[in-house]
Amino acid sequence: MTQMMAAREGRVTPEMTHVARDEKVPVEVILEGVARGTIIIPHSGGRSKATRAVGIGRGLRTKVNASVGASSEGSDAGGEIDKLRVAISAGADTIMELSSGGDLDFLRRQVLEIAPVPVGTVPIYQAALEAIEQRGSIVDMTPEDMFEVIERQGADGVDFMAIHCALSLEVVARLRQQGRVADIVSRGGAFLTAWMLHHERENPLYEQFDRVLEIAKRHDVTLSIGDAIRPGCIADSLDRAQVQGLLLVGELVERAREAGVQVMVEGPGHVPVPQIEATVLLEKQVCKGAPYFVLGTLVTDIAPGYDHITAAIGGTIAATAGADFICYVTPAEHLGLPSAQDVREGVIAARIAAHAADLAKGVKGAWAWDLAMARARKALDWEAQFRLAMDPDKPRRLRAERSPGGSDACSMCGPHCAMKLISEYLGRKEIETC
Amino acid sequence: MTQMMAAREGRVTPEMTHVARDEKVPVEVILEGVARGTIIIPHSGGRSKATRAVGIGRGLRTKVNASVGASSEGSDAGGEIDKLRVAISAGADTIMELSSGGDLDFLRRQVLEIAPVPVGTVPIYQAALEAIEQRGSIVDMTPEDMFEVIERQGADGVDFMAIHCALSLEVVARLRQQGRVADIVSRGGAFLTAWMLHHERENPLYEQFDRVLEIAKRHDVTLSIGDAIRPGCIADSLDRAQVQGLLLVGELVERAREAGVQVMVEGPGHVPVPQIEATVLLEKQVCKGAPYFVLGTLVTDIAPGYDHITAAIGGTIAATAGADFICYVTPAEHLGLPSAQDVREGVIAARIAAHAADLAKGVKGAWAWDLAMARARKALDWEAQFRLAMDPDKPRRLRAERSPGGSDACSMCGPHCAMKLISEYLGRKEIETC
Repeated sequence: MTQMMAAREGRVTPEMTHVARDEKVPVEVILEGVARGTIIIPHSGGRSKATRAVGIGRGLRTKVNASVGASSEGSDAGGEIDKLRVAISAGADTIMELSSGGDLDFLRRQVLEIAPVPVGTVPIYQAALEAIEQRGSIVDMTPEDMFEVIERQGADGVDFMAIHCALSLEVVARLRQQGRVADIVSRGGAFLTAWMLHHERENPLYEQFDRVLEIAKRHDVTLSIGDAIRPGCIADSLDRAQVQGLLLVGELVERAREAGVQVMVEGPGHVPVPQIEATVLLEKQVCKGAPYFVLGTLVTDIAPGYDHITAAIGGTIAATAGADFICYVTPAEHLGLPSAQDVREGVIAARIAAHAADLAKGVKGAWAWDLAMARARKALDWEAQFRLAMDPDKPRRLRAERSPGGSDACSMCGPHCAMKLISEYLGRKEIETC
Repeated sequence: MTQMMAAREGRVTPEMTHVARDEKVPVEVILEGVARGTIIIPHSGGRSKATRAVGIGRGLRTKVNASVGASSEGSDAGGEIDKLRVAISAGADTIMELSSGGDLDFLRRQVLEIAPVPVGTVPIYQAALEAIEQRGSIVDMTPEDMFEVIERQGADGVDFMAIHCALSLEVVARLRQQGRVADIVSRGGAFLTAWMLHHERENPLYEQFDRVLEIAKRHDVTLSIGDAIRPGCIADSLDRAQVQGLLLVGELVERAREAGVQVMVEGPGHVPVPQIEATVLLEKQVCKGAPYFVLGTLVTDIAPGYDHITAAIGGTIAATAGADFICYVTPAEHLGLPSAQDVREGVIAARIAAHAADLAKGVKGAWAWDLAMARARKALDWEAQFRLAMDPDKPRRLRAERSPGGSDACSMCGPHCAMKLISEYLGRKEIETC
């Protein structure tokens, strides 16, 4: 029985209880949200060790995903496991294992073994790579290959899967009609589109969506409907192809809910600032409040090397508008696989975006965190500032480097610290009583 | 004669011509904007070498300021000059020299000599520090000391000055009434408030604002009305003290314009996302369209070490709402003086914010830049991508490290690159003709 089916029967699962406690909201809020599908708890229950249940959706803290995974050109299982540990220590709420090279079953099982949080995958990667190995080409992949991998990964205990079901011949036709700048940048979307064009056949994951649902239901895998034709550049944002895809997504969300399968929706990508709010609202409306998992969003194309920043900007605006889950972007985006340091920077940047949005959303505890930091700063209490910092290590190191000497002020102003001066003339007591 | 006075007489200055060419707008737009005060060209003309004229305001590209300056606890003239060069090479549009230690006249004159862009200062720092040296304490500073330094810096050819004129006993009373978390975090605001409370006297820069205007007019110094009581934490944003200060700012803006003195308005600081647009609109309304120079804005207090990111988020939203000029924030903010590397990261982050907002504002050339990058990316033309990148060096280095081997794809996907695959199946020609 899935979390959603339990919720509909009014049954509170241990995962719902955990999420309610974690979010400091009544368990009834979680129960109702899971029943309606505005909250998901990606937790297949099939993993060998106990993991943290994480709630994603309306009214909850905005969550952050970090992706790891080897490619055939870079990194190895050990390197990716290191990145996984870095991501977790930096505060990632979930991990996606996106390998497209190496021993895929081995690495996925390692990640499932080690990660203390929900783990997601994109099964089409493995299906495509096995088709290349066994049959010579991606287009030689069979529908059975696709479903077999989804089943294999579900049986391993994967908590959520990005599956590009909402891609159809109609969507591809609309894409051609549109004439995009960057065409398709989703890897899974590209694999499937190539397959569809080669065979002149419908996408099996769309055509046989019920089989996807059946597997998802059996293992309580949460579906993340892959954004196969998300815009890959600012110029393509909110074009007819994207919107056509979203209409299909909305229909599939309803079918998933009818089947009792938890579902979220993947979103872009590259979106200029004035289109972010509309993008989120459209998803929320068309997909009836399904949790929205945005890949960024990046607000400009022109800053490779800094896309953790372009994504933090868009992620903040998207989450403020209602997006629930942010996929991190690292400084290496568009350039290559991230290093462990890139992973760290990517997670922190995405968490900043999530938290800035949580202040806007009025998420429990968000405002109190900033207030505590402001008070520590006012008191020049450096240990409290480090303890409260999203990343305690970097500010501690920066202060040690930049402001040695043990002054209670910092080297920006030295003895002429505004905070210090004003405290002398405008003491706390006076203010609080007048 | 100031730029504003010339504009009112319908006289096009060489600086207006340069700005019009740089922004690709008709010179009449610049002329009218400068005459009305919605555009400023901070260019005193008193500097020994020719410098780039930079326009700031409505309809123009969002500009970025980088601040340098030694303190008594850190860095030296040489180090600060290095940072100046780094800031310029990273693309800063203006430089503020904010030293609060060392030989202040020497360093300022060095910066004025070297910087090819407009240079700004905060004269009250020097007045306060000289008072400490000569009389033992900040509160022993005399009104004459303040005006003498403003005159001295104006005579040196400083292009714009942040002067905290909009601070009065009324504003301080409102601040006490409010009961803030972080009181005053503006260094100049703190110096003056301490002085006012100590002497129980009005702020000389407010009381004798006409003297400020006289000096500014004589040297065509653009005034930046210092945000003396800007919120220093999220909790203090848009409180009554801030708004009271803004009302004074609005009155002083009108007086400056009447005197033919160019003027902009400094803004916060720390502002939660849902309050940024209101903050900008309030300034634009109360100050009748005066260019808005925001210090950040930072959208959360809890990420020391990453405040270039918290500021890039807020800066984007502020500039999208109409802010014209962004003061950079470096990763060392709240911790100490920035290193040269911090300066670089700060400038790039602020430029990303400015550009993301320029896409939203429809600034000339902004959209075309992203489009060119998207096309280069689609074509896997790496040299073009580096050339078009906001910072060409970092992506070039990242790609060399992460994706060695000379494949035309990157190590994220290796041979299974979505861009490549889709180009095979969905060739450009076909799309462009169908």
